[in-house]
Amino acid sequence: MTAPQDPDRVLIFDTTLRDGEQSPGISLNTTEKLEIAHQLARLGVDVIEAGFPIASPGDFEAVQAIAREVEGPIIAGLARANPADVDRAWEAVRDAERPRIHTFVSTSDIHIVHQLQATREDVKGLARASVAQAKEYCEDVEFSPMDATRADLDFTAEVLQIAIDEGATTINIPDTVGYAMPQEYAEFLTTLYERVPELRDVVLSVHCHDDLGLAVANSFAGVLAGARQVECAINGIGERAGNASLEEFVMLLHTRAADVGLTTGVNTREIARASRLVSRLTGYAVQPNKAIVGRNAFAHESGIHQDGVLKERTTYEIMDATTVGLDANQLVLGKHSGRHALRAALEELGYQVDGQTLNTAFKRFKEIADKKKQVTALDLEALVTDELREEVAAYTMEWFEVEASSRRPPHATVGVRTPDGEVVQGAFTGDGPIDAIFRAINAATGLDARLRDFRVDAVTGGQDALGEVSVVVELGPNAGERIGLPGVLLRERATGAGQAVTTDIIEAAGIAYARALTNAVRRMQAQAADEASEPTAELATP
Amino acid sequence: MTAPQDPDRVLIFDTTLRDGEQSPGISLNTTEKLEIAHQLARLGVDVIEAGFPIASPGDFEAVQAIAREVEGPIIAGLARANPADVDRAWEAVRDAERPRIHTFVSTSDIHIVHQLQATREDVKGLARASVAQAKEYCEDVEFSPMDATRADLDFTAEVLQIAIDEGATTINIPDTVGYAMPQEYAEFLTTLYERVPELRDVVLSVHCHDDLGLAVANSFAGVLAGARQVECAINGIGERAGNASLEEFVMLLHTRAADVGLTTGVNTREIARASRLVSRLTGYAVQPNKAIVGRNAFAHESGIHQDGVLKERTTYEIMDATTVGLDANQLVLGKHSGRHALRAALEELGYQVDGQTLNTAFKRFKEIADKKKQVTALDLEALVTDELREEVAAYTMEWFEVEASSRRPPHATVGVRTPDGEVVQGAFTGDGPIDAIFRAINAATGLDARLRDFRVDAVTGGQDALGEVSVVVELGPNAGERIGLPGVLLRERATGAGQAVTTDIIEAAGIAYARALTNAVRRMQAQAADEASEPTAELATP
Repeated sequence: MTAPQDPDRVLIFDTTLRDGEQSPGISLNTTEKLEIAHQLARLGVDVIEAGFPIASPGDFEAVQAIAREVEGPIIAGLARANPADVDRAWEAVRDAERPRIHTFVSTSDIHIVHQLQATREDVKGLARASVAQAKEYCEDVEFSPMDATRADLDFTAEVLQIAIDEGATTINIPDTVGYAMPQEYAEFLTTLYERVPELRDVVLSVHCHDDLGLAVANSFAGVLAGARQVECAINGIGERAGNASLEEFVMLLHTRAADVGLTTGVNTREIARASRLVSRLTGYAVQPNKAIVGRNAFAHESGIHQDGVLKERTTYEIMDATTVGLDANQLVLGKHSGRHALRAALEELGYQVDGQTLNTAFKRFKEIADKKKQVTALDLEALVTDELREEVAAYTMEWFEVEASSRRPPHATVGVRTPDGEVVQGAFTGDGPIDAIFRAINAATGLDARLRDFRVDAVTGGQDALGEVSVVVELGPNAGERIGLPGVLLRERATGAGQAVTTDIIEAAGIAYARALTNAVRRMQAQAADEASEPTAELATP
Repeated sequence: MTAPQDPDRVLIFDTTLRDGEQSPGISLNTTEKLEIAHQLARLGVDVIEAGFPIASPGDFEAVQAIAREVEGPIIAGLARANPADVDRAWEAVRDAERPRIHTFVSTSDIHIVHQLQATREDVKGLARASVAQAKEYCEDVEFSPMDATRADLDFTAEVLQIAIDEGATTINIPDTVGYAMPQEYAEFLTTLYERVPELRDVVLSVHCHDDLGLAVANSFAGVLAGARQVECAINGIGERAGNASLEEFVMLLHTRAADVGLTTGVNTREIARASRLVSRLTGYAVQPNKAIVGRNAFAHESGIHQDGVLKERTTYEIMDATTVGLDANQLVLGKHSGRHALRAALEELGYQVDGQTLNTAFKRFKEIADKKKQVTALDLEALVTDELREEVAAYTMEWFEVEASSRRPPHATVGVRTPDGEVVQGAFTGDGPIDAIFRAINAATGLDARLRDFRVDAVTGGQDALGEVSVVVELGPNAGERIGLPGVLLRERATGAGQAVTTDIIEAAGIAYARALTNAVRRMQAQAADEASEPTAELATP
């Protein structure tokens, strides 16, 4: 919850579902975004930037669903500085307990000239109008001068003054290119404070990118200069090298609290789960040497972290796996565990599972428990996340057979259930068994999808680990002609991502591929249906 | 090359092969370490910390080989502050063009009491003796007060004075726990300069860890405070959250040269290749949103990076994929390319391949070219790296057959060539086809290895991408009894990593597993043979 009266409280603004979701290859459906949003609420973030409602009908739907369902954090929707965007953003967030409209316009001459093809005067007008319009709808209005760190400081100050005059309650300063250095960024903010004294009456926010590995350091420098909102994302996902990692910034404040004296509202024990969920649903791996949430983050030598006699100069809150919730592997079920035990275990993980969903989950749990000696909390989490994906699959791999050998080319046959409910069959002899399964699915469905990314990770370690397969496919104009969707306009390519979790990699690969296909087809249909919007790929954002 | 007379030149000390190699699950053989070292030389680092010679015979051998073969950078070996370590380090590096001994001892009371079980006076004596001993051997001596950022500053200053008196030419200040903040770290260095004026006559070095996401920021703050050596690693690998990323620090200086005015000797166009090589050989993935070398680092929206009119406050060297060498995908061969074209392409990539090695490479190239329309430079690089691994495999999977189906459990049969040269056969019906192949290899070899990690990445995008499989296995005391190695002492577990690249994932998995097995067996033999050394896992380092 926000406690704006506390001068030492830093607000955490999570943009995983907006800036993060714009990263290449990520495509989350509404159910998946809701799941992440619920975890963000459990995590205790102050603001969830749920999306960019004008970008597509799917984006709008997700922001609206989150606004309606997720309690606790402020729910924000992004809008460019024009009436249609602001209207759309309001429509999407209006049902939230605490809605926010976040509007932005570029203040750097590079952007004004090349992207907006406008003038500085135009920009001032756009800022004035969009903040005023947002304020008609909503008390809580945030304004960002995009690409501020490359903009003329005096001009930026003028624009900020306008935004504040029109009622903006949060002013966010993005380092859009990601090239700022900490001292310089702090000085930029300090100078803005001098030029625009009323900046002290609103919340100053920072939004830093990690192109030079300084996103957290810049955010920290900004906070020390007076900013009290940090825009960040789980696992640091986002455009290019990503946004500031939420978990890194939060744990920096937590660990150095005695010296820095600033707090957030984040429940650190939910960090690991948030990280896993986002990684799993986006298909974006977290490297082993990632701070806080990497596999090795707490794999340390004995002696390094003994909290013994500490010297007077500095004091540390030593963080360990428990602090960030990485000890979730203690829960263990076995093949004799019953439905009740499963339900209780899932509840402890935060999932309310009943009725048919529980039956399905129990059936899958039994299949896994038969093969694995122990089913851990991580396995269960993967299983439930996988079930979330299952509900929305339109193409489903029903069965498969593959022969792989070093002596002859691998041959695969599959049966795929289509959206109409019928099961079609396909076969292929490929370069490898996975390749053969993918092409067999193409043959069965008649969709000429191309594989763009393929990855396999083990959910937990060990011989009998569950394997998690991530697949990204692409459909293009050529393919569209064979989709057979009436009236589909074929201007764009569409990508779709799919993941699956089983003990059998080939099976998981096939299931993931079918899901990716489903998402790609849906995206293509959405793009075709939404004639008025610009394609999402061209919407440059802070 | 080092140009110590230039006050604006920052020396890059790469510790990928020492701090990096200590990360969990990484096991590099000498050939692989040499390959990395040669790439580091091409990259233009000033110092290569090639390893920790006392840690094991394998470590010693690798440091010595690098010292003997790699020209250009200073070659450093690490040593604790005792005579045996320093002797051993000298033995390993003495044949280098420019050898360095890097010795260290903890100065924090937590370490002195708990790790060393000693006193501050003892530590002063150890520092004096080890630097003096090293100086007898070698002009170039580096000294690190380990865990300095948690140590009493005055005591640390005393120890540094001693080290300088005995002839240390580089003083390195590690933030061993990784909890320092930039301003604080800079102040620590500034205060050390005040307490120890002669610090200005040597090279001050920084060594930062990324536990709070501040490794690069702290290194940068240190350099602004006067340090002129930065210890870092490719892809930021290293203990826990890793070391400062070499590529991030270098590109920070490069991009902001106009404002910061400091340079390194690094050839930035070799960065991407270094990153791929280290990622491939260590099995450590680089996440998509990793700065500089992540897959998305330069996947940016149009308009964001237009180098148009820049304002007077700051100037940027805009970096793009070409700057860091990420455009290596232009080279393309096809199935009609001959041996000569292959050789030329490999040369362009920096590999001198002739004779039998060229024949083998050509054969594999042809196999791949038959399956893929185009073979790119990335594919070739993967192929050559794979060949490097091939040379040292003792257990090799000769052939396999797998039947996978959703209707019955997968069955695998394999033929494995053992170190004796005979081919043994094994079969297994498993939970999945990969599981079945692994257990079939276990059955064939009689080795009860356990799978600890398994990952698959695509080398290049696309339907016909090469798949790269990474496997880590573990052998333990139980297994050792069945190894049948005479006189093998079975106190320790041993892990081994293996990777393989083919278009067929199942095949690659089997090949990688056999390699991992080979490395694990060798490591167990090395551990058993080396009675006198402490097990590597207990050697805490800066």
